[in-house]
Amino acid sequence: MHVKSIVHSLFLGLSLTSFQVYAEKITLPKPRTNEPIQPIPLGVEAHTAKVELGKMLFFDPRLSKSGFISCNSCHNLATGGSDNLPTSIGHKWQLGPINSPTVLNARFNLAQFWDGRARDLKEQAGGPIENPKEMASNHELTDEILSSIPQYVELFRDIYGDDDIEIEEIQDAIAAFEDTLITPNSRFDLWLKGHDDALTPVELEGYQLFKSKGCVGCHNGVAVGGNSFQKLGIVKPYPNTTILGRYNVTGKESDKMVFKVPTLRNIELTAPYFHDARTWDLAEAVKLMGEYELGLDIKDEEADKIVAFLKTLTGEQPKIVYPVLPPSTAATPKPDRG
Amino acid sequence: MHVKSIVHSLFLGLSLTSFQVYAEKITLPKPRTNEPIQPIPLGVEAHTAKVELGKMLFFDPRLSKSGFISCNSCHNLATGGSDNLPTSIGHKWQLGPINSPTVLNARFNLAQFWDGRARDLKEQAGGPIENPKEMASNHELTDEILSSIPQYVELFRDIYGDDDIEIEEIQDAIAAFEDTLITPNSRFDLWLKGHDDALTPVELEGYQLFKSKGCVGCHNGVAVGGNSFQKLGIVKPYPNTTILGRYNVTGKESDKMVFKVPTLRNIELTAPYFHDARTWDLAEAVKLMGEYELGLDIKDEEADKIVAFLKTLTGEQPKIVYPVLPPSTAATPKPDRG
Repeated sequence: MHVKSIVHSLFLGLSLTSFQVYAEKITLPKPRTNEPIQPIPLGVEAHTAKVELGKMLFFDPRLSKSGFISCNSCHNLATGGSDNLPTSIGHKWQLGPINSPTVLNARFNLAQFWDGRARDLKEQAGGPIENPKEMASNHELTDEILSSIPQYVELFRDIYGDDDIEIEEIQDAIAAFEDTLITPNSRFDLWLKGHDDALTPVELEGYQLFKSKGCVGCHNGVAVGGNSFQKLGIVKPYPNTTILGRYNVTGKESDKMVFKVPTLRNIELTAPYFHDARTWDLAEAVKLMGEYELGLDIKDEEADKIVAFLKTLTGEQPKIVYPVLPPSTAATPKPDRG
Repeated sequence: MHVKSIVHSLFLGLSLTSFQVYAEKITLPKPRTNEPIQPIPLGVEAHTAKVELGKMLFFDPRLSKSGFISCNSCHNLATGGSDNLPTSIGHKWQLGPINSPTVLNARFNLAQFWDGRARDLKEQAGGPIENPKEMASNHELTDEILSSIPQYVELFRDIYGDDDIEIEEIQDAIAAFEDTLITPNSRFDLWLKGHDDALTPVELEGYQLFKSKGCVGCHNGVAVGGNSFQKLGIVKPYPNTTILGRYNVTGKESDKMVFKVPTLRNIELTAPYFHDARTWDLAEAVKLMGEYELGLDIKDEEADKIVAFLKTLTGEQPKIVYPVLPPSTAATPKPDRG
């Protein structure tokens, strides 16, 4: 039995010298600590000024060559931290090679990008900026653009202590912001914390299927995924081998078609699914995973129950006050739409 | 002499029955009511639920064919309600014909678009959605997309009272949101309200020049513009006649090269300037206006002072909590990147 003392302080109508303190005993729910999935923490430690700067940069289209594309263009915080496109649209409307992964809860990933080629969010943040198919800028240009804007110079100086804005600092600030993008208090997390009525019987049945079928073998931990690399097509070869995944990082034969297991947090918000956006339908995605990863024929009815469970993984989305960005100056290099 | 009674209520350490009320006389600043520019009101009446829905739609990229472009793409509320590009980037990276006007304070315009072809914000909102060079969607598709998303259906039903989502309602909600996008409390407005020290002597000198040179003849009223159509090239023909402006609406010879006078509110945030983005430099813009509209050779020093004044027109930017959009469903038409 968990017991907690709660102090009610009631000022209204009482003088400060006579306010009353009283305690009552209440029964707290008993957390489920033996599940393979853990709840998302309610908050993270953060350097407030750095997070605020990182947010500005995350939304600033001047990090792209065209002045049109920001981090948020493909990792849209209005739509689950992704863009709901098969692959992203980049500079001059080039279509990217791979589905944009969500930035939500990305801090829990063992590495970043589908192939894990970036160690962490800071390293990741530098990639799209200079990818010619994405933001198509380069790090020198980014430094120059931000350095030409006095308000940015001041913000960077306050945090990093020098007058030079450098790409490492830009990436560091963006990562600090992204680090805060967690989605706690999903209904599933409430259930994990002992609130029995947070899930319906069907959702609970779906979760039991998710475990008994073996989905949880890869999709576990805080992010329900993101913490291991696995082969796509463990029991049946995946038909699309255009992108070889982790092999491109390690060069190891055994890493062909190996990808970072995506998080299933907020999965209902981030269609289409798989690195190649093979399906927009979550139930179909579940069945395909059964087929390729587990050698199972997951029935429609079972898939529907698993989907019901998966939808309980949608958490509170980060509350973002849209930033107001400082204006460019005469010294700011002009956007180049190409 | 303006006198106001102020009630100080001090609860701390006092019982509710004995708190003290006292009044003091203070001198309020005397508003300048005879100036040709009026302050932006501090707030506007709004239908809260409709504004909230309109905000969602304003940021929803599903209003575009590609699922990538939202109203905010070209009227970015992080950057003065415009995109800081010569002309906007639309579907398949088509470059638009004309500089994107700011959505901030657009409610004060006598009509919308540079040529005034839309009567009001509601009428305007329908245009870019179906412009093949902009969002490239069509109104039937937009209705179908939103109607396939239960959360949207519910929000529209609550406001408009029926189960059909129609483009008129979409435009109405977007307009209701845009109606709230005002920028009060600029330093110039504080000065108008009688706060003498809100402007520096140079800024004040700039304002006097702005009046004495005749700029204020067109740039006046609440929005410092936006309330009349005027010929671009009154005294000297404007060299770029690619776009004929109001003539395209009325067909009248006298309306050739006639445009809506743009607002100068927040002008430091919305480079580049003029419908054809002729310059990124505000001082140059001032000098060009002197040349083409007034037949005046405005000296560099004068232009700098006028620019100093113009920068005092930057007001408080709308505080926007970034919306969380409801997910698409199996019935939602898929984005078409083209």
